[in-house]
Amino acid sequence: MLKKVRRVLVGKPLKNEALNEQRMGVLWGLPILSSDAISSVAYAGQEVLMVLIPVIGLGAYKQLSVISVIVIGLLFLLMVSYRQIINSYPNGGGAFVVAKENLGVVAGITAGAALSVDYILTVAVSISSGVEQFTTAFKVFKPYSVLICFILILLLMVVNLRGVRESSRIFGIPAYCFIIGIVVMIIVGIARIKGGYVPPQPENIPDIVKPLSLLIFLRAFSNGCTALTGVEAVSNAVPNFKTPSTKYAKRVLLLLSIIILILFGGSSVLANLYHVNPHGNAMLVMIAGEIFGHGFMYYYITASTFVILVLAANTAYSGFPMLISIMAKDGYAPRQLSMRGDRLSYDNGIIMLSVTAMLLIIIFKARVTSLISLYAIGVFLSFTLAQSGMLVKWLRTRDAGWKLKAVFNGAGALVTSIVVVIIAFTKFIGGAWLVVISLPILIFMITKVKKHYNAVMRQLRLKPEEISAFNINKATYTNRVIVPIESINRSSLRALRYARTISENVVAFSVAIDDESAKKIKEKYDSLNTDIPLITKYSPFRRVVDPLLKFIESAEYDYEDGDMITVILPQFAVKKWWHRILHNNTRYYIERELLKHKHIVVSVMPLQLRDDDYVLNNPKYD
Amino acid sequence: MLKKVRRVLVGKPLKNEALNEQRMGVLWGLPILSSDAISSVAYAGQEVLMVLIPVIGLGAYKQLSVISVIVIGLLFLLMVSYRQIINSYPNGGGAFVVAKENLGVVAGITAGAALSVDYILTVAVSISSGVEQFTTAFKVFKPYSVLICFILILLLMVVNLRGVRESSRIFGIPAYCFIIGIVVMIIVGIARIKGGYVPPQPENIPDIVKPLSLLIFLRAFSNGCTALTGVEAVSNAVPNFKTPSTKYAKRVLLLLSIIILILFGGSSVLANLYHVNPHGNAMLVMIAGEIFGHGFMYYYITASTFVILVLAANTAYSGFPMLISIMAKDGYAPRQLSMRGDRLSYDNGIIMLSVTAMLLIIIFKARVTSLISLYAIGVFLSFTLAQSGMLVKWLRTRDAGWKLKAVFNGAGALVTSIVVVIIAFTKFIGGAWLVVISLPILIFMITKVKKHYNAVMRQLRLKPEEISAFNINKATYTNRVIVPIESINRSSLRALRYARTISENVVAFSVAIDDESAKKIKEKYDSLNTDIPLITKYSPFRRVVDPLLKFIESAEYDYEDGDMITVILPQFAVKKWWHRILHNNTRYYIERELLKHKHIVVSVMPLQLRDDDYVLNNPKYD
Repeated sequence: MLKKVRRVLVGKPLKNEALNEQRMGVLWGLPILSSDAISSVAYAGQEVLMVLIPVIGLGAYKQLSVISVIVIGLLFLLMVSYRQIINSYPNGGGAFVVAKENLGVVAGITAGAALSVDYILTVAVSISSGVEQFTTAFKVFKPYSVLICFILILLLMVVNLRGVRESSRIFGIPAYCFIIGIVVMIIVGIARIKGGYVPPQPENIPDIVKPLSLLIFLRAFSNGCTALTGVEAVSNAVPNFKTPSTKYAKRVLLLLSIIILILFGGSSVLANLYHVNPHGNAMLVMIAGEIFGHGFMYYYITASTFVILVLAANTAYSGFPMLISIMAKDGYAPRQLSMRGDRLSYDNGIIMLSVTAMLLIIIFKARVTSLISLYAIGVFLSFTLAQSGMLVKWLRTRDAGWKLKAVFNGAGALVTSIVVVIIAFTKFIGGAWLVVISLPILIFMITKVKKHYNAVMRQLRLKPEEISAFNINKATYTNRVIVPIESINRSSLRALRYARTISENVVAFSVAIDDESAKKIKEKYDSLNTDIPLITKYSPFRRVVDPLLKFIESAEYDYEDGDMITVILPQFAVKKWWHRILHNNTRYYIERELLKHKHIVVSVMPLQLRDDDYVLNNPKYD
Repeated sequence: MLKKVRRVLVGKPLKNEALNEQRMGVLWGLPILSSDAISSVAYAGQEVLMVLIPVIGLGAYKQLSVISVIVIGLLFLLMVSYRQIINSYPNGGGAFVVAKENLGVVAGITAGAALSVDYILTVAVSISSGVEQFTTAFKVFKPYSVLICFILILLLMVVNLRGVRESSRIFGIPAYCFIIGIVVMIIVGIARIKGGYVPPQPENIPDIVKPLSLLIFLRAFSNGCTALTGVEAVSNAVPNFKTPSTKYAKRVLLLLSIIILILFGGSSVLANLYHVNPHGNAMLVMIAGEIFGHGFMYYYITASTFVILVLAANTAYSGFPMLISIMAKDGYAPRQLSMRGDRLSYDNGIIMLSVTAMLLIIIFKARVTSLISLYAIGVFLSFTLAQSGMLVKWLRTRDAGWKLKAVFNGAGALVTSIVVVIIAFTKFIGGAWLVVISLPILIFMITKVKKHYNAVMRQLRLKPEEISAFNINKATYTNRVIVPIESINRSSLRALRYARTISENVVAFSVAIDDESAKKIKEKYDSLNTDIPLITKYSPFRRVVDPLLKFIESAEYDYEDGDMITVILPQFAVKKWWHRILHNNTRYYIERELLKHKHIVVSVMPLQLRDDDYVLNNPKYD
């Protein structure tokens, strides 16, 4: 039943080959890889104002320009650094890979943890901001923000569990729609002002203004830095480009940087010209309202911003499971996370991502201003680690032109590390503490997991001389069998007969609450005419495991160290899902307890139950 | 770890023998069995007034007297009927047993379902009422009613999971305290009025009064009937009395009826004299306030009423799991509910009861007035079924004096069935619909469960001639073994060696994603020098089950119908609980799928993993 639901919702399984079908050029690579980065325009500038306006009033707009210029400078430094990563890692240079290869395991784990946290926040922030765009235009839905976020994340989860590969080009279109819309808005907005239009003064702007402290400025700057989240996406995706893939990737990265420059810079200019006060609403939508009135373009900007933000969240749905599976394959995460789901998507990762993002949205009530405090630490930390890794690589390899390259990556590492400290410091109380605490815990957990898999690997590994010493063809031990029986029935007789085929040394074992029940089963057993002995033990708790283990250890059984004991347990294979809760409950318990012991093998023997109605209407069973 | 927590909270296991240690006489039997019945005094009269006052104002108090007289009449009819059940069922005559024996399976199931619902409501109503007593005296806690209920139920759950048998006598004392308190209050209350005291007129009593409709009267009467819940407890508990147990039980039942007469009748008189308007508060506490002022006796009445109500809930904690386990033993409920927990208490039933009662309290916000609408249908339905069962019994057996006995039980059956209809009809919209809907669903579910166990029993059962035809000593089939291997390691070699000991017909089976990985494992396998063949299949989904089953069905394997196939799966036995999520996840999946097939036995071979640190620091594993 569950399987059917799953099939309908998730679709048919795909084959491995489907993976490599479609590769991207510039035309589609740009929009597909850019949604995370360009959608940041929807909240970065707005959240700078949200910090500054309550403190310095109208002065905030000028400071927004200052911050925008610094952020754009940072953007181009990052672009240059990442071009070098693309050249060096044509197979995809995620921060995890670059850091692990050049800086060692701990740096790799740290980058992996930072990126994981960042992906979760990409979903939480993008969805919350998307819903904010929507509720700014349609205010009646404001009270239902968390619910709408919930529905969107559920939708993304289902869509991604289905696998989104087939339709990936469709995902490129909204990015172009968004870019065109914002560019038109920038042009028309500037033209109107030039034409003499004087926008109304915004409400809620405080009159009495305090001087701008460094702390407040840096806090605003931290929010501005969220505009840069997502630029690393291109360097991760190099193998998805057509050949020559590094050339295409670098071209896309350059175009992406220019687009961010235009959109982020342009929207800063508009905020300055129109003095919009977001005050918990979406700035882009408000500006669109000022410029276009509540006509077509207003709803066009709202819709395209909403869609691009949802798509930004969607990029995390491919990035996060991919990262986790790379880590899982290396033993840094539970192994089942490395397995591809039915439709070549990583089901477990997708579900993990959805649940944690949803939790964050509930905790922070879908407020972008609150969630933004957690964001960007992870991104910039991974920037720092990737750039530092590249720096170390240049110092080590000393390739042609390594000095200049080292300067670029070194500068990138330095600047982004300063940003990490700024964000962690100025946003600590606002929410960054959650990330600052989670990261070391995550790193600790990852380390422990890796250590465990390492220990297991060593225990399993056999040296060539051990292999030849290991005599598969002839065991050195005696193989004994115990069949616990509850009563004499079809199931227990089948188990006894099977036991006989696998060993000469078989005993049947039963527990009794009192002498009477012991006598009863003994009598019935005797009628079987078998030479398999029946052992009956008194069990005060009506449990099987304890007396069974006690019996094995007792002199009565004369178990010799090294003997292998196979315990045969019956199981009913049921026809209906709800029959499962009616059976096999003790079987699982007994199995779990027995498997804690070294020389015990548990064999489960299924009995296929027929349909209830069939049995009850069949005279054969009367 | 979980086991330790459990030990601390729940205590050591008890042995079977402890069950029969303490038997009750009248002195302790009365208070222990009466708490459910006498505690009803705390809400029955009050909820009659809650219905009547808003409609007929001051006239409500006179009508309360009328209803009280009818209810007390009902009480004595029930007492006489139940004396006859005690005589006929000295081993405990629950409605389930009486109805099933005399009226057939469906009636028994109906009684069982009705009683189950009733036990849950006993907990919900008693705890809500107990908290109402408390918050009437301490108004600041009123907003936290649901939370306090939650804590109390949690407490009852833990105490009952520990097993409460040892201290059962202590549970008798509060009943005496409560009885004495209320009797003193009745005497002092009447004496004060006789002495000329004129109580103040109550607030919130409407001036304009409508005529009393029959519907409203019956609705009030329905609430009054809740005073009778719990009187059946004595007849269920006959075997717990000292011998001659029926004599003691009947004596306790008589005393209990007299006490209810005094307490319920007396508190009606007080309500009439003092014109207390409960209006969502506890009537007994308000009366105590009027009579004693806010001194010692006020708090004494509050505390003893609170305690007796909590104890009433506690009786459901022994009754419900006992009922469910009786039903489970007969195959009317999942079998695991019939198993006694560690401390001779029925853990599963206790948890079920707590969770459902808590859900009801949350849904109805711990309001007694709301919950009372659901109550008493179950009780009176089981009364009806028990009495009808007795009636049929007399008609069938025609024992000495059967005619008079049949008249009493017949009258009981008739009157209680009328009450069922009255409650269901007058309270339907108020909440009774929930019970009216749940009961048929429960009955349907119970019937399905019974049917399934029946079908299973028939499939397992062997006729004597089948037993002798069943040749345990020599199987007629070939036993084959398949060992799925992922790589050549200690675990897979152990499995292969074990396979060889149980059969001559062994194959190793591996899946590969591509030719390269297939070649790699083949090469390594060849170095083993074994004659066990290795089968390698290409698996596009990287899954083992599908290609394995396909292989078994293929001509390549030349499986003959009837052959038994044992599949050996390795499992890691881990040292730490969190290691479990790192392993064995595919094992469970493979096992579940394979066990759906008729001739496949799954053998699980554990490999005991050593401590991570031990392995990593031991040069042996380098």
